[in-house]
Amino acid sequence: MSTSGLNMSRRIRRTPYTDRVEQHGVRGFSVVNHMLLPKAFAPSVEEDYWHMRAHVQIWDVSCQRQVEIQGPDAARLVQWMTPRDISKARIGQCLYVPLIDDKAGMVNDPVLLKLAPDHFWLSIADSDVLLWAKGLALGARLKVSVREPDVSPLSVQGPKAEDLMAKLFGEHIRGIRFFNFDYVDFQGTRQLVQRGGYSKQGGFEIYLNDSALGSALWDAVWEAGQEFNITPGCPNLIERIEGGLLSYGNEFTLENNPLECGLGKFCSPDSDLEYLGREALQAIAAQGHAREMRGVLFDGGPCPPCGKPWPVHAGDAQGPQIGRITSAAWSPRLQRNVGMSMIEKAYWNPGQTVTVCSADGLHRPGMVCALPFA
Amino acid sequence: MSTSGLNMSRRIRRTPYTDRVEQHGVRGFSVVNHMLLPKAFAPSVEEDYWHMRAHVQIWDVSCQRQVEIQGPDAARLVQWMTPRDISKARIGQCLYVPLIDDKAGMVNDPVLLKLAPDHFWLSIADSDVLLWAKGLALGARLKVSVREPDVSPLSVQGPKAEDLMAKLFGEHIRGIRFFNFDYVDFQGTRQLVQRGGYSKQGGFEIYLNDSALGSALWDAVWEAGQEFNITPGCPNLIERIEGGLLSYGNEFTLENNPLECGLGKFCSPDSDLEYLGREALQAIAAQGHAREMRGVLFDGGPCPPCGKPWPVHAGDAQGPQIGRITSAAWSPRLQRNVGMSMIEKAYWNPGQTVTVCSADGLHRPGMVCALPFA
Repeated sequence: MSTSGLNMSRRIRRTPYTDRVEQHGVRGFSVVNHMLLPKAFAPSVEEDYWHMRAHVQIWDVSCQRQVEIQGPDAARLVQWMTPRDISKARIGQCLYVPLIDDKAGMVNDPVLLKLAPDHFWLSIADSDVLLWAKGLALGARLKVSVREPDVSPLSVQGPKAEDLMAKLFGEHIRGIRFFNFDYVDFQGTRQLVQRGGYSKQGGFEIYLNDSALGSALWDAVWEAGQEFNITPGCPNLIERIEGGLLSYGNEFTLENNPLECGLGKFCSPDSDLEYLGREALQAIAAQGHAREMRGVLFDGGPCPPCGKPWPVHAGDAQGPQIGRITSAAWSPRLQRNVGMSMIEKAYWNPGQTVTVCSADGLHRPGMVCALPFA
Repeated sequence: MSTSGLNMSRRIRRTPYTDRVEQHGVRGFSVVNHMLLPKAFAPSVEEDYWHMRAHVQIWDVSCQRQVEIQGPDAARLVQWMTPRDISKARIGQCLYVPLIDDKAGMVNDPVLLKLAPDHFWLSIADSDVLLWAKGLALGARLKVSVREPDVSPLSVQGPKAEDLMAKLFGEHIRGIRFFNFDYVDFQGTRQLVQRGGYSKQGGFEIYLNDSALGSALWDAVWEAGQEFNITPGCPNLIERIEGGLLSYGNEFTLENNPLECGLGKFCSPDSDLEYLGREALQAIAAQGHAREMRGVLFDGGPCPPCGKPWPVHAGDAQGPQIGRITSAAWSPRLQRNVGMSMIEKAYWNPGQTVTVCSADGLHRPGMVCALPFA
């Protein structure tokens, strides 16, 4: 049992960094992909938010598990899983790829890393893509191996991340462009470093490929980060919502198609790509999707945590329900609450006035916004 | 944010009973199948243990999600997923079925419910069998629908469970045999009731098929249970280990085959059944599996929670490592610690003396035992 109150067991996997995270006094965990994700260190999510925007943080995001797909049919399997055209991806490039099923329902929204023409990693959100990809491959008798390698991303996020990484791994780090990766040497091992991460403040993810080096890598980043005012952190709810970063299971599930998730720009429904769910997605595209992801800015003072979705009504609380808030937080910068909701088509234009009925019983006046929030 | 310290979000799904569970003052949750599982109510797991052995408890086990497989190829798909022969299962019968992949690795260990010749539910442990089964079916172009219905099991466990259920649903409940199911009327709806559950104290699971009735069902069970000294509870770690009930992700993972899990009696490796992983399982069976699940009884006073596996050595702590404890608890009845570990073949006979090196640094003398514990 940790200080978090979450009951610990082997089933909820520790990461190569959990020992360090505990030494730093983590105050809560979530569970993603059967693995611990630290959720709170600083006295408040707000302090954490301001720190991340100004300095640099070290995050244990090992729960972003990799699904490795390798072999003669690897590119075919990856393309089969997504409506995004992956044919022109370069080695060293990352693509954000919606994965959909035969009904165009979202299975996951991973980042695809192309390691070689026949070798990919899917860096996944919270669903067992390993079983999905294996099932498809075995069912269709594809020549491909699908497995979860011993890779545990450690994220370095914030405006000072580049200086920290350059100090630690060398100046060539600065040449890695956004959503590309390269390799660095760490204690004689070759490790993949990507420029990206689950914030809008800039940063890198180190895809550590050897659990045994977890504490050593954490310590090296921590030490190099002292002059940059580094703190331990985690994906920040306020910053994530402001940045319009979706979370699988929160903003969308298997019940949702990628167009209503606002992921249309990552889909090629009308191409002749061979992917699962093409007919379903084409039908939705032809008819026009009925709702789409939007930001909602709303008042009434700091809102409570959004554990179950809150109805969004057009106009006042007597107006028709046009959406439901699935994630929300008080923005200390905007001095209003920020939330995300799919909004019905007739009401999805920015500026639409709405009322959010939060779990505390308040009727909170608000407005539909584009994502990300300004 | 609940009292549990687990950060709440829509991604970690509430159940139809979560409102009631919170009203009863739940003190902690775990996460199984992306859903909340209550983990603590009573002042201690020990009090909970004694109460369950003497009276009756109501458990929210909605996280035992159902994967519904229905259609002309349903029986073929289910058989393809398991080395257990399902051909002779009767309608109304439940079977404990190991699910394995092409390498004979354990994907899950659900209870199979046969609703009709072409209609099954898999009541699953903690992995996305929905995606696994859908992937296999789509890859192999099987004529079958695979989905997660709105079914949320509520468990009534303990020696007084039968009297409670008979009072609530009628005397015919007493005629349901272990690992069989029948239907009851609840407020004009037809609901499936199975005799079984995740304890060895006897009981039933009500597979509520309509979330909207969650609070009503909870209240009906609660009210009927007053004369039987009912309390809210949850799977009890001490009772589970004593009873030799395995937990997917704790005692075994995709890395383990069913024979080393001690599930050989549920496998027919040498049959001509058409199931995935048959060659791999036959090869393991021919060679003989190298380790097998056992109980370990050990001393040194109440052990700490087992968050990461503890080495088990033959003889004293200098002896060879022959296993690792994956779940452990102090048994107030046996006045010793009980644990589970796969044990290497040369040492797996009951009576073998061992030393358990627990996380608190103690070297605890112990002994290999058969499961369940006496």
